[in-house]
Amino acid sequence: MPGVQAQPSFVLVRPQMGENIGAAARAMWNFGLDRMVVVAPRDGWPNPAADAMASGAGRLLDEARLVDELPQAVAEDHFVMATTARVRDLTKPVLSPEEAMRQTAERIARGERVSVLFGPERAGLENDDIARANALINVPVNPEFPSLNLAQCVLLCGYEWRRATQEIMSQRVDMAGTVPASQEEVDALSAHYEDRLGQAGFFFPDEKAQSMKTNLRNMWSRMPLTRADVQMLHGVLRQMVRWKERG
Amino acid sequence: MPGVQAQPSFVLVRPQMGENIGAAARAMWNFGLDRMVVVAPRDGWPNPAADAMASGAGRLLDEARLVDELPQAVAEDHFVMATTARVRDLTKPVLSPEEAMRQTAERIARGERVSVLFGPERAGLENDDIARANALINVPVNPEFPSLNLAQCVLLCGYEWRRATQEIMSQRVDMAGTVPASQEEVDALSAHYEDRLGQAGFFFPDEKAQSMKTNLRNMWSRMPLTRADVQMLHGVLRQMVRWKERG
Repeated sequence: MPGVQAQPSFVLVRPQMGENIGAAARAMWNFGLDRMVVVAPRDGWPNPAADAMASGAGRLLDEARLVDELPQAVAEDHFVMATTARVRDLTKPVLSPEEAMRQTAERIARGERVSVLFGPERAGLENDDIARANALINVPVNPEFPSLNLAQCVLLCGYEWRRATQEIMSQRVDMAGTVPASQEEVDALSAHYEDRLGQAGFFFPDEKAQSMKTNLRNMWSRMPLTRADVQMLHGVLRQMVRWKERG
Repeated sequence: MPGVQAQPSFVLVRPQMGENIGAAARAMWNFGLDRMVVVAPRDGWPNPAADAMASGAGRLLDEARLVDELPQAVAEDHFVMATTARVRDLTKPVLSPEEAMRQTAERIARGERVSVLFGPERAGLENDDIARANALINVPVNPEFPSLNLAQCVLLCGYEWRRATQEIMSQRVDMAGTVPASQEEVDALSAHYEDRLGQAGFFFPDEKAQSMKTNLRNMWSRMPLTRADVQMLHGVLRQMVRWKERG
């Protein structure tokens, strides 16, 4: 298991305006969060407009982890949550910011690594991004005017993080004795199944193949898998292949 | 008692940039709040920059109540809370946004009128403004970086309002059978005491007079006075004056 992390990472997925990246950094630091990950920012990196807006929180941008694709951002995580404006069709737990940050604080207290994903300004996260998340975070906004911007969404999650950790503080949760699977391990499991099922002709007809794959990936990421579970599930699949190959 | 109000008023005291007023309107409407009061906006009213920024929440600006001074804004209120970045020397209850909005929801459910004050961007509320409040709201920010802007502070209070009302919804609190004093009634009481005590030479020496008056006003506004209490307190003072006049 990678080194213990004292707070969640906030992952900005394909952010567009530098100003919004800077405002997000400020909103994080307002609540003591400083682990930012930036995935494929539209205008490159570093971003002078982001630096200008961040002012006192500029250190977060200097130290931000820059990656090309979302899977790299969350590879080592044990739990990934995706913020969404609308609740989607994908079957995932939908958490309020309060509940999400309460669970985050508990997971981190027992040594897990947690990321929260924030989508690009206009479009939000794509279904492929969402499929990598174990749960969704939905802010209870006015349905007539659900127009939170990126930095506001970061602000509310940061605020709930601070509330949760002030409450939880010394209330450490016992290690359950199990090692949760990392996102990378779940990804590998997912790919293993997808490959083998593809060979097996599972994804049929063609026009449904993509959504069938997304649903499958979604199922794995929704489950609270341990490393032992993952190994067993690989074993299941390998055994089926062996069985098939024996003819 | 004035007509029942279903939500608190958010009072922007001497706001400066129109953009911030517009952003505050958006933040309110994100959480279903639409009663805005604007006190002495620096750049006049209406404000085109505010309208441009508010976009979908422009109606709040059209319908905002514009007043010249804070006392007019809160005259009919039964409970006033002031948001502050730092907790001041004035002896008032200091509430988290969550607790403040929980109390607001309860008060409104029993027919009271509640306002939340937000100060100008740079300086925040002045002590004279704060002295009119019954309680303070303090957001638990990172002490190393406590730089919430106006719209962010409005956003967090709006968010907690929505959380509180979703929880409280049908859980209506019984009318306690007492009529709480309005802010106007408490102001009148305060002025009555200030006048008479001034005549009586209470505010001495001169260089301390202003802070003594502030402290006094502060004391009245901190108390949960009923209308009957106020009448009695007027009576007390009148009786002292009569007694004095009898020589």
